[in-house]
Amino acid sequence: MSLLVVGTVAFDDIEAPTGRADNVLGGSATFFSYAASFFTRPRLVAVVGDDFPEEHRRLFDSRQIDLAGLQTVRGGKTFRWKGRYQQDMNSRDTLEVHLNVLADFDPKLPEHYRDSTHVFLANSSPQVQAAVLDQVRRPKFVMADTMDLWISTTHDALMKLLPRLDGLLLNDGEARLLADEDNLIRAGGLVRKMGPKFVIIKKGEHGAMLFSADGVFLLPGYPTAEVIDPTGAGDSFAGGIVGYLDSDDTPPPGRLRRAMAYGTVVASLTVEGFGLDRLRRATREEIEARVEKYRTMLAF
Amino acid sequence: MSLLVVGTVAFDDIEAPTGRADNVLGGSATFFSYAASFFTRPRLVAVVGDDFPEEHRRLFDSRQIDLAGLQTVRGGKTFRWKGRYQQDMNSRDTLEVHLNVLADFDPKLPEHYRDSTHVFLANSSPQVQAAVLDQVRRPKFVMADTMDLWISTTHDALMKLLPRLDGLLLNDGEARLLADEDNLIRAGGLVRKMGPKFVIIKKGEHGAMLFSADGVFLLPGYPTAEVIDPTGAGDSFAGGIVGYLDSDDTPPPGRLRRAMAYGTVVASLTVEGFGLDRLRRATREEIEARVEKYRTMLAF
Repeated sequence: MSLLVVGTVAFDDIEAPTGRADNVLGGSATFFSYAASFFTRPRLVAVVGDDFPEEHRRLFDSRQIDLAGLQTVRGGKTFRWKGRYQQDMNSRDTLEVHLNVLADFDPKLPEHYRDSTHVFLANSSPQVQAAVLDQVRRPKFVMADTMDLWISTTHDALMKLLPRLDGLLLNDGEARLLADEDNLIRAGGLVRKMGPKFVIIKKGEHGAMLFSADGVFLLPGYPTAEVIDPTGAGDSFAGGIVGYLDSDDTPPPGRLRRAMAYGTVVASLTVEGFGLDRLRRATREEIEARVEKYRTMLAF
Repeated sequence: MSLLVVGTVAFDDIEAPTGRADNVLGGSATFFSYAASFFTRPRLVAVVGDDFPEEHRRLFDSRQIDLAGLQTVRGGKTFRWKGRYQQDMNSRDTLEVHLNVLADFDPKLPEHYRDSTHVFLANSSPQVQAAVLDQVRRPKFVMADTMDLWISTTHDALMKLLPRLDGLLLNDGEARLLADEDNLIRAGGLVRKMGPKFVIIKKGEHGAMLFSADGVFLLPGYPTAEVIDPTGAGDSFAGGIVGYLDSDDTPPPGRLRRAMAYGTVVASLTVEGFGLDRLRRATREEIEARVEKYRTMLAF
């Protein structure tokens, strides 16, 4: 099995009621691949500038994350995001975005990536997502993230992409926007009719919902008393899901649900530190123990 | 077993994106006792004016709800509430409140109520809640609801009440206020240290969390595509919980969790119609089927 992720590698500047952290390694492909690395060996596609330090490459290497697809633009600067979390840690304001090298990024897969069986298209324009997918020979499982910007500005391209997906990941507000429906249960069903085999609606601290041919599956958030920095929670969730799926070939119905439980738990670890701080201290054993605890928290 | 509820019986005027309904039978004791009547025979304590129609008494009778504790004030008018739900159905504005006979309500238990084993003190001042509890001889299980008003204005009385409770029910904002803590997991633990054996934090459509000696238990909301009127959801949830507990005497650890699943399901039915409309069409069999479906929605 083999897992490909296309997304961003970034420097984040984060302000939160819990403190602040500058110049932190972040981005969707970073959180996704780190989360997935507990289960499999991800292949990363992203772009950075030549300000990207060797130290971060070594961190990816240490997790056996393939960096053959990490383009480095000479003389360019790495994508940078600055955000501030509000008191409740649920809402955040983007203070600055510097696309830098991301502005002209045209992802090209290294030849040996093209046989990947599992593909995650992190949040990006649906045209870029489709162009990446075109380069994968016979993907068995494709999941994509999207956001309100693409729903509003590149609706047709998104509609063309959706039938090519196994799973679409989006948050509650985005699901309501895409479906033009306030009731989330109806919205989930309507988005699924647009083409993806299943839809996962993320609800932040309130967890997620899966809409599939098997009906609705509910996952409350894993309760953590230590929310330090929610940045990367969604991409870690995705990384746990697809990473786990890439490592497990038992029959499908229970597998996706189990994968979502792993994703939930990995995301709960991510938010317990700035950037990758907490995830770097996590182990597969710790994840397994938390999944078992999570199971008992849901049993009645 | 025997279940006592003290709360309100009201006329509600409701405006929602789904329509409007005037003069609807509502109030905490109404929703609680109707929900509990699927499991046991509740004893109701509340007050109404002589504008309260015979038709509503017959409805309670038909559910074997004991009305010996329903005081009727001659020449008085029944408590009335008018509210409007916003587009997302999660937030609402109170447009009018007419306390009427509720203003001078001093709940007195009929003699045969005093041996009740299960007690639910619906939202009311902690002084009134304590005065009711004083009249019950040897309650086995006491649960109370509260709200921000009492947390802010009658804090000492609430603090005196809490150690007398098995369970305290409150919503997420109220838990944060009472604990003076933004993180909900920590807030739940802190409120439990104030005296109640367990704390249930309600999160509206996102479900609820239980904090007890057994740790944290998570219940996402039951997903319903037909949210017509959320009024009474919280009290139906409570009625399902305590009604079920009053009817089940298997050992405790699993019982409270099971009761909460029943409460969640009864509440999901309540919101599918204005006032009691949907609950009046519900059956115990339908509730059992939804509980089973709910169980599969959580399994991984």
